[in-house]
Amino acid sequence: MTALKAVALGGGHGLHATLTALRALDDVITEVTAVVTVADDGGSSGRLRRELGMLPPGDLRMALSALADGDGTDPAEALWVRLVQHRFGGTGALAGHAVGNLLLAGLMDVLGDPVAALDEVCRLLGVRGRVLPMSRDPLDIEAEVTGLGDDPRAASRIRGQVAVASTPGRVQRVWLRPERPRACSEAVAAVRAADLVLLGPGSWFTSVLPHLLVPELRDALMTTRAQRVVVLNLAPEPGETAGFSPEQHLAVLAQHAPGLLVDAVLADVAAVPVLQQLNRTAETMLVPGGRVHLAPVAAADPTVPRHDPTALALALRAVLAAFAQRRTGRHRGTDRPETAERRT
Amino acid sequence: MTALKAVALGGGHGLHATLTALRALDDVITEVTAVVTVADDGGSSGRLRRELGMLPPGDLRMALSALADGDGTDPAEALWVRLVQHRFGGTGALAGHAVGNLLLAGLMDVLGDPVAALDEVCRLLGVRGRVLPMSRDPLDIEAEVTGLGDDPRAASRIRGQVAVASTPGRVQRVWLRPERPRACSEAVAAVRAADLVLLGPGSWFTSVLPHLLVPELRDALMTTRAQRVVVLNLAPEPGETAGFSPEQHLAVLAQHAPGLLVDAVLADVAAVPVLQQLNRTAETMLVPGGRVHLAPVAAADPTVPRHDPTALALALRAVLAAFAQRRTGRHRGTDRPETAERRT
Repeated sequence: MTALKAVALGGGHGLHATLTALRALDDVITEVTAVVTVADDGGSSGRLRRELGMLPPGDLRMALSALADGDGTDPAEALWVRLVQHRFGGTGALAGHAVGNLLLAGLMDVLGDPVAALDEVCRLLGVRGRVLPMSRDPLDIEAEVTGLGDDPRAASRIRGQVAVASTPGRVQRVWLRPERPRACSEAVAAVRAADLVLLGPGSWFTSVLPHLLVPELRDALMTTRAQRVVVLNLAPEPGETAGFSPEQHLAVLAQHAPGLLVDAVLADVAAVPVLQQLNRTAETMLVPGGRVHLAPVAAADPTVPRHDPTALALALRAVLAAFAQRRTGRHRGTDRPETAERRT
Repeated sequence: MTALKAVALGGGHGLHATLTALRALDDVITEVTAVVTVADDGGSSGRLRRELGMLPPGDLRMALSALADGDGTDPAEALWVRLVQHRFGGTGALAGHAVGNLLLAGLMDVLGDPVAALDEVCRLLGVRGRVLPMSRDPLDIEAEVTGLGDDPRAASRIRGQVAVASTPGRVQRVWLRPERPRACSEAVAAVRAADLVLLGPGSWFTSVLPHLLVPELRDALMTTRAQRVVVLNLAPEPGETAGFSPEQHLAVLAQHAPGLLVDAVLADVAAVPVLQQLNRTAETMLVPGGRVHLAPVAAADPTVPRHDPTALALALRAVLAAFAQRRTGRHRGTDRPETAERRT
């Protein structure tokens, strides 16, 4: 149960929280890889993407800073972590751009490859681990949304992460443009080689589900020998998941990745109104022996629902302990055998 | 004659050439400091300066790359040298910005001090030496120019490095706004501690003379124990020095820094039409025993007049040898004593 390789998939603040939690578990998890969505079209990332045709860098930058942050033993690294996150002020052409986004833009230009650019920033920031894009190509999210017009059953198509994340309608399903993008091969390899894979939390349709819509990445997630953990959101997000219960989050995950089995579902204890309903939905996705874990993982700050990385680390440690126990039980022959689908 | 500290003052391509030449003399010159003009208001530098109120970074960036460039033993440093000089393409908000300019902008923001920001980039690029601004405050150049209207004697005031450098009139004199700016104290200290100070080549009114218009820096140049070498331009520049002879370059230097004595004037052998005239002007500025050195220092490329750093290094080595010889002569009592003004 030591020297585990973990992969966290997601984007934005949710991924930042899981990566920070994984770093806190460095006694058991010795290798962390972030696999990051590249469908952002808003803010500094959207502007850079439109102007330079590059991968939107914002979520990548946040993942880099999560894996670099907080050590502080090397003052130069600490300075560069601060610099990478610094945003220009004012009202001019640079206003709002994070320096790290511009740095990634320059490195991608000069090196001609986003993975090489990310590896170089990892080196600069003293990142232990790796940050990878889910695809080397910038992607777009499209969604089928109901409730935008007078007819509540009429479906509309809307395009772009910002549009989907802020729709006043109800998102029914999402897909990518291009529809079957090439995965980043290093990300596929990381998922295949992992012992632990975390999916979520994060903007459900625009940061978490997209990974399942990249065919090679979905295949890797389906067939990896890693334990798969879904970390549910703390609350529905205004816009894309307004009014969603925890079990609905899980249901849309299953709908977008039919056949995906997971080893654990982790939810905040206060975010699950009816555990029975969550359990019922989870049962359809859990491997034999897998289960829903409830733990207090929300940060105290009540303004925005955020996972507390320390609490999340504690909860993940409990999940890992449950995996270990299950494995021991299986060795003793007391556990059900795993499905063929999982371990081939 | 070994372990000399050298300071090169200037900006742009001229300073890049002297810094590259000084690096090539690293058997005798072990410490190089660049002191850079901060009055640029054009291009990427001008945009950043106007947008963020920062020092114009372009000349600083070029000096950094001159002192970092070419080693190539550390591939990471080589990559960052390339990155710092890389300019974004396209037609958007970032088009034309050098990544190094944006990096300096971010570091100046985060560290709150341009010298600390420059020292950090020096560390990143493996610069041996230091790059300093002549002042911590962005400055403006103003010029008195004749020949812009119908009356050839009527003088106009024009403002800004770009305007002065490209005026169709004849620049009579320049001054700074603010008129008596504070010098960068580290630059003053470097000049005071130097063994060798190089002034020029470069855009004469807008890159070379400005150093003499910062009172504390001029005082340091007047009183330093360093040997002072003026490196003349290869040709007049269309705009600010159109039609200027080498001796006219020297004369405007004397006009802007009355009382400044120099130990040597270095000119390209092909750029001096009448040596006697240059000698006559130089005599009024040279210390006893000082002289004009002629050497082939122009690069072969005929499109733009540029100093060839290797040839310039060779010429500077000859100048240093002449200084050593003079010192030996003086020790033997065969040289005239120095003026009180020089060595107090």
